[in-house]
Amino acid sequence: MAKDFVKRSENYSEWYNELVVRADLAENSAVRGCMVIKPYGYAIWEKMQRALDDMFKATGHSNAYFPLFIPKSFLSREADHVEGFAKECAVVTHYRLKTNPDGSGVVVDPEAELEEPLIVRPTSETIIWSTYKNWVKSYRDLPILCNQWANVVRWEMRTRMFLRTAEFLWQEGHTAHATKEEAEAEAQRMLDVYADFAENWMAVPVVKGTKSPNERFAGALDTYCIEALMQDGKALQAGTSHFLGQNFAKAFDVQFLNNENKLEYVWATSWGVSTRLMGALIMTHSDDNGLVLPPKLAPIQVAIVPISKSDEQMAMVDAKVAPIVESLKVKGISVKYDNRPEYKPGWKFTEYEFKGVPVRLAIGQRDLENGTCEVCRRDTLEKVTMPIDGIVEHIEQLLTDIQANLFKKAADFRTAQTRKVDSWDDFKREIEKGGYLLCHWDGTTETEEAVKAETKATIRCIPFDAPAEEGKCVYSGKPSHRRVIFARAY
Amino acid sequence: MAKDFVKRSENYSEWYNELVVRADLAENSAVRGCMVIKPYGYAIWEKMQRALDDMFKATGHSNAYFPLFIPKSFLSREADHVEGFAKECAVVTHYRLKTNPDGSGVVVDPEAELEEPLIVRPTSETIIWSTYKNWVKSYRDLPILCNQWANVVRWEMRTRMFLRTAEFLWQEGHTAHATKEEAEAEAQRMLDVYADFAENWMAVPVVKGTKSPNERFAGALDTYCIEALMQDGKALQAGTSHFLGQNFAKAFDVQFLNNENKLEYVWATSWGVSTRLMGALIMTHSDDNGLVLPPKLAPIQVAIVPISKSDEQMAMVDAKVAPIVESLKVKGISVKYDNRPEYKPGWKFTEYEFKGVPVRLAIGQRDLENGTCEVCRRDTLEKVTMPIDGIVEHIEQLLTDIQANLFKKAADFRTAQTRKVDSWDDFKREIEKGGYLLCHWDGTTETEEAVKAETKATIRCIPFDAPAEEGKCVYSGKPSHRRVIFARAY
Repeated sequence: MAKDFVKRSENYSEWYNELVVRADLAENSAVRGCMVIKPYGYAIWEKMQRALDDMFKATGHSNAYFPLFIPKSFLSREADHVEGFAKECAVVTHYRLKTNPDGSGVVVDPEAELEEPLIVRPTSETIIWSTYKNWVKSYRDLPILCNQWANVVRWEMRTRMFLRTAEFLWQEGHTAHATKEEAEAEAQRMLDVYADFAENWMAVPVVKGTKSPNERFAGALDTYCIEALMQDGKALQAGTSHFLGQNFAKAFDVQFLNNENKLEYVWATSWGVSTRLMGALIMTHSDDNGLVLPPKLAPIQVAIVPISKSDEQMAMVDAKVAPIVESLKVKGISVKYDNRPEYKPGWKFTEYEFKGVPVRLAIGQRDLENGTCEVCRRDTLEKVTMPIDGIVEHIEQLLTDIQANLFKKAADFRTAQTRKVDSWDDFKREIEKGGYLLCHWDGTTETEEAVKAETKATIRCIPFDAPAEEGKCVYSGKPSHRRVIFARAY
Repeated sequence: MAKDFVKRSENYSEWYNELVVRADLAENSAVRGCMVIKPYGYAIWEKMQRALDDMFKATGHSNAYFPLFIPKSFLSREADHVEGFAKECAVVTHYRLKTNPDGSGVVVDPEAELEEPLIVRPTSETIIWSTYKNWVKSYRDLPILCNQWANVVRWEMRTRMFLRTAEFLWQEGHTAHATKEEAEAEAQRMLDVYADFAENWMAVPVVKGTKSPNERFAGALDTYCIEALMQDGKALQAGTSHFLGQNFAKAFDVQFLNNENKLEYVWATSWGVSTRLMGALIMTHSDDNGLVLPPKLAPIQVAIVPISKSDEQMAMVDAKVAPIVESLKVKGISVKYDNRPEYKPGWKFTEYEFKGVPVRLAIGQRDLENGTCEVCRRDTLEKVTMPIDGIVEHIEQLLTDIQANLFKKAADFRTAQTRKVDSWDDFKREIEKGGYLLCHWDGTTETEEAVKAETKATIRCIPFDAPAEEGKCVYSGKPSHRRVIFARAY
């Protein structure tokens, strides 16, 4: 077990921050609010990217790349959008430095001021819709189904690695359609893709639903989201998909000739997930011994540690392990055989445990004699000694089991943390315990804001599958027709 | 053949610009000097990325991600580096916009000025070495073999799509080593990787060599490069790998305890290729009918166009084509069957030809009767009618042949355009014809600059494989021991 590692029950927030650094996922950089994603953390992100990218392509999307910079005037074109994004952005005002007249380093050259400041993209609707204007003439040019993998910057005042950083990595899909129905279906389809990815790759159960108007994306008519529940009982918005109506088409005058030769404005969606998913992944599964990774996203799925007292013994273990490594690779299982002499087996056990490697094998002298090895699974920390015969098939099955078990564990936790609450007194007490509170809500922004002001809880979503049910708003007592999810959130 | 498309012989520069736009590769954006990479162009870049990334990983490198922003003071730490990069950079000075007091849009909030301006990275040595300082304590922490896929910004005054843009996409490898020898070997290894990629994936023959001091990367002790020759006789630097010595380690105080427990500065390399490779790819192979792509990097390797006069005929062609498409996919060949009714076969032929699809099949009524199809290869535009039996194997072989033929054609062109020149009069005449001039050079910067001033030619590189040969500098007549390559360049 890792030494001096704070427990979740002691200080969940500190546990998270320390875990991110000690598991070599990321660290803070010299630039305020910007993180460095270290190779091990980035390897997980790459696996996420690859899986998502394949899913985007399977649903007909292509990648493209749009400029990092947005002319200041573009932001103002859509009224809600500028309101949402102008507050916190990085502004480029000059294009040159010059040597300081006093010889000490460089200074901004006042002669090199831009005529119009450029904003480092906080999201790309405006620059993309200014481009789509040239791409769309007739219904034949639709739909446009583009995605971009990019960095974006939002000048957040309080930052936390992966969860909220000034610069973060994400993908943003931007689609253009001939009809409202098609755009709405696209926004729903991509939310389904996100939910599929969260549940089947990240092993993170999510609720699909609609955001209340208060929590909508700036410029959207509807925002759909997937919401996950962390181990401390706080919710985390893991992905969003927006139906943008014709707002951006109107702002950038993007019209097309329909098949009756009439001009119409184009319908839009946008959708994105970011490196924030890393935060969701970490906080859903990890424990007091460090990171726990679902096998499908683990950069190393199996670590093999030899235990030997001499070079001769080590050579014998090397020979025994080589065909196992080969067979695992043939099955597409990523394996690391760590026979570095400068580290002791105990150090390696702690290391791979802390880094969340799903399966660890150990092979020592007695194992060589008996034809066995020790198999330890990271999710339960259960250890068993097994015959080496058939070990590859066993590991393959074990990885599947671990993936399923992590999902089940998280789903059971969520079930236990979800409860119906019908009175304001109950609400105030229950919200302190964390989890999802299923409550009636009168549908007004006033109530939403009052609840937030009194309890810090927000409406996470109106679940798609919420059954019709008559009731009274937990706060105002006014009539309501279905329950929504309230929770405190990241 | 594409209509109204300018010929290379008429105006090579215009031919290039028009080709990029008409083949749907990229277009200029609303932001000066920044391009939009369109889906078809980005699909080629993705194929390049995937192949290069696999090669980086096969040579032991991992990806990571470092901040977009560099504190201004970091740039000044390494004297040559700041000299090379401070001139043209995007400077972030503020972190907020606010509503214009007169109500019209938004303005930069003067209250939100950064204490220290941030530079949008033109390259990341400084931010990365400030990070490596925390990663390196002892020789056990070395080597560090990191790569990053990222966007960078250099405020170029004259831009051309892919060749020179203010923002571009690239990868930058940054490695840290315990010894000089190891770092030098790494810089060489990565140049070999680039050459391998250029020749075997892009079908672009390259010369590997060392840059003259004048053309070195700002902050490097040695810059190695691969140089390619375009069809207009101008050279293009396609990739560089730098041996940085201990310059950045000293600038950021990165020391390690060696195995004798003594402190030493770390040795560094960096190496990069960018979306500029797209320019090299386009200009090496394409012709007056549009883009020509090597099969290994073509997003669509085979396009199949049906020719039919009725829905009934179309259904018959569909049925005939379906198993061909399936078999090609099984072999990992990307194929597009284009039976869109709203476009005519002739339009489709021109379209796929212009977009450089390596192989195009056409199947019509007579083919159905005869069990044949027409096969057209893009590199030679040769058309043959073939039996459908065995067509998949034929296409597979054809793709290999086209890849080899494109390389051979480019290599033959380069051979024809490379010549030894021994007098200054010959030099001035020959440089006008383009191509590589193999000349003796006295090794001085003065000569290099004089040659450039008089002829616009620069030393592209001192080839690794240049044989020792005594001679006299083509410009100064002073003694020289080997020939270098002079050319005009992009």
